[in-house]
Amino acid sequence: MRSVPSRTPADSQSVLVRWMGVTDANSAGYVHGGAVMRYCDEAAGLAATRHSGRRVVTAAMDRMTFNEPVHVGEVVTFQARVNAAWRTSVEVGVRVEAEDPRSQTRRHTNTAYVTMVALDDDGRPSPVPALECTDDTERRREREAQLRRANRLAEREEIVRQRSA
Amino acid sequence: MRSVPSRTPADSQSVLVRWMGVTDANSAGYVHGGAVMRYCDEAAGLAATRHSGRRVVTAAMDRMTFNEPVHVGEVVTFQARVNAAWRTSVEVGVRVEAEDPRSQTRRHTNTAYVTMVALDDDGRPSPVPALECTDDTERRREREAQLRRANRLAEREEIVRQRSA
Amino acid sequence: MRSVPSRTPADSQSVLVRWMGVTDANSAGYVHGGAVMRYCDEAAGLAATRHSGRRVVTAAMDRMTFNEPVHVGEVVTFQARVNAAWRTSVEVGVRVEAEDPRSQTRRHTNTAYVTMVALDDDGRPSPVPALECTDDTERRREREAQLRRANRLAEREEIVRQRSA
Amino acid sequence: MRSVPSRTPADSQSVLVRWMGVTDANSAGYVHGGAVMRYCDEAAGLAATRHSGRRVVTAAMDRMTFNEPVHVGEVVTFQARVNAAWRTSVEVGVRVEAEDPRSQTRRHTNTAYVTMVALDDDGRPSPVPALECTDDTERRREREAQLRRANRLAEREEIVRQRSA
Amino acid sequence: MRSVPSRTPADSQSVLVRWMGVTDANSAGYVHGGAVMRYCDEAAGLAATRHSGRRVVTAAMDRMTFNEPVHVGEVVTFQARVNAAWRTSVEVGVRVEAEDPRSQTRRHTNTAYVTMVALDDDGRPSPVPALECTDDTERRREREAQLRRANRLAEREEIVRQRSA
Amino acid sequence: MRSVPSRTPADSQSVLVRWMGVTDANSAGYVHGGAVMRYCDEAAGLAATRHSGRRVVTAAMDRMTFNEPVHVGEVVTFQARVNAAWRTSVEVGVRVEAEDPRSQTRRHTNTAYVTMVALDDDGRPSPVPALECTDDTERRREREAQLRRANRLAEREEIVRQRSA
Repeated sequence: MRSVPSRTPADSQSVLVRWMGVTDANSAGYVHGGAVMRYCDEAAGLAATRHSGRRVVTAAMDRMTFNEPVHVGEVVTFQARVNAAWRTSVEVGVRVEAEDPRSQTRRHTNTAYVTMVALDDDGRPSPVPALECTDDTERRREREAQLRRANRLAEREEIVRQRSA
Repeated sequence: MRSVPSRTPADSQSVLVRWMGVTDANSAGYVHGGAVMRYCDEAAGLAATRHSGRRVVTAAMDRMTFNEPVHVGEVVTFQARVNAAWRTSVEVGVRVEAEDPRSQTRRHTNTAYVTMVALDDDGRPSPVPALECTDDTERRREREAQLRRANRLAEREEIVRQRSA
Repeated sequence: MRSVPSRTPADSQSVLVRWMGVTDANSAGYVHGGAVMRYCDEAAGLAATRHSGRRVVTAAMDRMTFNEPVHVGEVVTFQARVNAAWRTSVEVGVRVEAEDPRSQTRRHTNTAYVTMVALDDDGRPSPVPALECTDDTERRREREAQLRRANRLAEREEIVRQRSA
Repeated sequence: MRSVPSRTPADSQSVLVRWMGVTDANSAGYVHGGAVMRYCDEAAGLAATRHSGRRVVTAAMDRMTFNEPVHVGEVVTFQARVNAAWRTSVEVGVRVEAEDPRSQTRRHTNTAYVTMVALDDDGRPSPVPALECTDDTERRREREAQLRRANRLAEREEIVRQRSA
Repeated sequence: MRSVPSRTPADSQSVLVRWMGVTDANSAGYVHGGAVMRYCDEAAGLAATRHSGRRVVTAAMDRMTFNEPVHVGEVVTFQARVNAAWRTSVEVGVRVEAEDPRSQTRRHTNTAYVTMVALDDDGRPSPVPALECTDDTERRREREAQLRRANRLAEREEIVRQRSA
Repeated sequence: MRSVPSRTPADSQSVLVRWMGVTDANSAGYVHGGAVMRYCDEAAGLAATRHSGRRVVTAAMDRMTFNEPVHVGEVVTFQARVNAAWRTSVEVGVRVEAEDPRSQTRRHTNTAYVTMVALDDDGRPSPVPALECTDDTERRREREAQLRRANRLAEREEIVRQRSA
C-alpha cells in the first residue's frame, strides 16, 4: 500500500523564464547549447521537486533536440511537466520556446526529457507520489515516457549483448 | 493625430522566473537586494520593449520596497506590467514573489516602479503607443502612476526651492 | 537614553570602484541599468554597515535616476554617504560617476537613495547610532532625506485613501 | 567522390578539465547536473570543431547518464571523442571523470552522447570528413552510435504512428 | 626629442574597490589568490591606461606576495601607481588592503608589480610619457623598479647560460 | 628524519583546459591577463595539493610572462609541475598554451612560477614531501627554482638595505 497521495501533472508544472544575455552566448551572439541544457535541467528539477516535495538529482538526460538556435536578446521560456512517475524517479519533459520581445514572434527551439530521482534527508532514493493523468494528452505523454524508458533499457541490453558477443 | 495604435497592459505583460542560486546570495544564503533590483529592471525592460516595440533604457527606479528577504533555493517570479504611458516613456510596475518549491508556499517580497524610455535607431527618445486601460484595476494603477510622477516632480521642485532659499 | 555614540557622515562614507566589463553589459556595449542598481545597493550597504557596525538589509530603493548611460570600458565610482538615521534604519545617498580612463573625462550618471535596516544577531531590527551632521551641506542632505521619507509616507496614505474611497 | 580527407577519432580527441568551484554548485556543495551538461556540450563541440575544421552547433543530446554526483573541490575531466560521422553531422561521446585532488581517487561520473552539425560560413550544414576507425574499439563505438541513431529514428516514428493512430 | 609630455605618478594613480562575494571564494570562505591577481591586473591596467592615454596589455607579473588571506565579506582596495616608465612600457605597483566593514580594521594583504605595454591603434608598442618623480618616495620606488628589472634580465641570462653550459 | 615519502614531479603534474568564452575577455575579444593569471593560480594549486595531499594557499606569484595575447574561442591548456619543494612550500611552474581548434595551431603564450604553502587542518604551515627528481630536465628545473628563490631573497635584502641607507 502506498501512503503518498498521487499528484497530477498540473500540480507540479513549472516554468522558468530568462532574458538571454551576453554571458550565455558565444561572441557571434548565439546562446550556447550547453546553456540551454543547463536551464532545462533547472526547470526539470523544479517540477520534480514540486511533484515529490523532496530534494532531487538528475539521473539522465534523453533525447534533447536543438531545432533552432537561440539568440542573445531573446526571452526564453522553459516549461517543465512530469510525464511519468516510477518508484523513486520521474520523467520530466521540457519545452523551450524563444521570443524576440520587439516583434513578439515565438519559436519552439528545443525539447528535452530528463529523468530525476528524489532523495530523502540521508541522500537515499525516496518514493515519489504516483502520477494521476487527467486527460488523453497526459495519458499519451505518460505512454511515450514509458516507451522512451523501454527503448533505453533495450538499447543498453543490446549494447551489452554485442560487446560480450 | 497619433499614428501608433494604443496597447493594453495585457498586451505587454511580462514575467521572468529564476531559481535563485549561490551566485545571487551572500554567504548566509540571503539573496542580495541588488540582485533582486537587477531582475526587476530586466522584467520592466521586457514589458517596456513589448509595449513600445523598441529598444528601451531605464530612466528611474522609484519606491522599490523589500518586505521580506529572498533565500537561495527559492523560485522568484518577476511580473511586470505597464501602468502608464507618456509621450516617450512608460511606468512599469513589478511585483516580486518568492516560493519554496518543496512546500510551495508563496510570499510577496517586493514591489518596484521603473520608468523606461523608448529609443529610436539613433538612440533618441521615441514616441510610445498610448495605454488603453480595460478595467477599473488598470485605471487605478494608471492613476497611482500619475500620482507617483506628480510627487516626484513636486519633490524635485521643493528641493530646488529649499537649496536656493 | 541612547547608549550608542553618534557618528558623522564622514565616519561611514564608502566608495566602490569597478571597471565595467562585458558581463555587466548588453551586446551593444551599454551597462545594464540593473547592474548599476546592484552596485548602488552594495555601496549603500557598505556605508550602512560601517555606520551601524551591524549586518544590514535593504528596505527600500527610492528616486534612483539614470541621467546618462554607462559604457563597457568605463571606470565607475559608487560613492555612498549616510544622509539621515532613524531608530533602526538609515537613508544612504549614492552618487555614481563614470570615467573613460583614456580621456579621463568624468560624468555624473546616477543618483540613488537607499533605505537600509540594521539587524542584530537574531535578525531583528537593531538601533543605529544617531547621525551627527557637521556642516550645512550635511544638514541639507538630512533635511532632504526627511522630505523624501515624509513624501513616501504621504503617498502611501493617499493611495490607501483612494483605493478605499 | 569526396574531396575532404577522412580523419581518425584520435585526430580530434578533446579534453577539458575544470576545478569545480562554488559557482557551479548548489548550497549543499553538489555540482548542478546542468553545469555538467554544459561542459559536456563544450567538450563535444571542441571535438566536432577539430574533426570538421568548421564552426559547429549542437543538434541533440542523447542518453546522458548521471551515475554519481560531483562535488565542489573536485577536478573534473571531460574527454570527448568522435564516435561516428554522417554527411554533415557527427556523434561525439563524452566521458566525465571526477577526482578529489587530495586523495587522488577518481570516479567515472557521467557519459553523454552529443550530435553536432558542422556549418559553413553562411550558416548552412556543411559536409564533414569521414571517420576512419583504426581498431576494434573504435569500430565498436561507431556501431553503437549507429544503433543509437537507428533507435532514435525508430522511436520518433513509433511516437508519430501512435499519435496518428 | 620626445613630444609626449611627462606625467607624475599622481596623474595616473588608480584605485579599484570591491566587496568580496561568494563567487570570488572557495567553499571555506577564503578569496582565491587568483581572484586577487585578476583585480591587481585590472588596477594596474587602469593606471597604465591613464598614464599612457592608450590601450595597454600585460607583459609580466612580478614578485606578487600573499601576506594574509582575504575573506568573503571584506572590502578590498587595489591601489595602483606607476613606479617607472621605459620606452613603451611601465611598471605599476599595486598595494592591496582588506577591511572588515563592521570592525573597520584594515590589513595590508598583497603587493604586486605588473609590467604593462602601451599599444597604438594597430596593436604595436607605442611610446609612453616619461615619469616625472616629485619627491623622495617616488624616486625610491622608481629605483626599486629599475632594480627589479635589472634582476629579471640578469636572471634570464643566468638561466640561458646554465642551460647552454 | 622525515616521515613523509618523497614524490616525483610526475606524481603531481596537473593540467587544466578551458575553452575561452566571452566572460573572460574584453569587448575586443582579447582574454584579460588577469583571467590567465587566475587559471595559472588554479593549476598551480592543483599540483601543490596533489604533491602535499593538503589544502594549499598561494604565497607568491613570480616572473609571470605574457608572450602573446589569448583570444576568445581558443582552447587554453595550463600545465603545472612542481619544480622544487622546501619545508612547507613548493614552487610550481605553469606553462600556458593556446590553440585555435579549427586550425589546430598551438602557441606558447605564458609562463608562471607560483609558490604555494601547504596547511594543516588548523591552518598552520605543514611539511610537504621532498621532491625526487628523476632526470636531468627535472634537476635543471629544480636548480632554476632555487635560483629564483635566492634572487627573490637577495632583492628583498637589497631593497631593505637601500631604504635604510
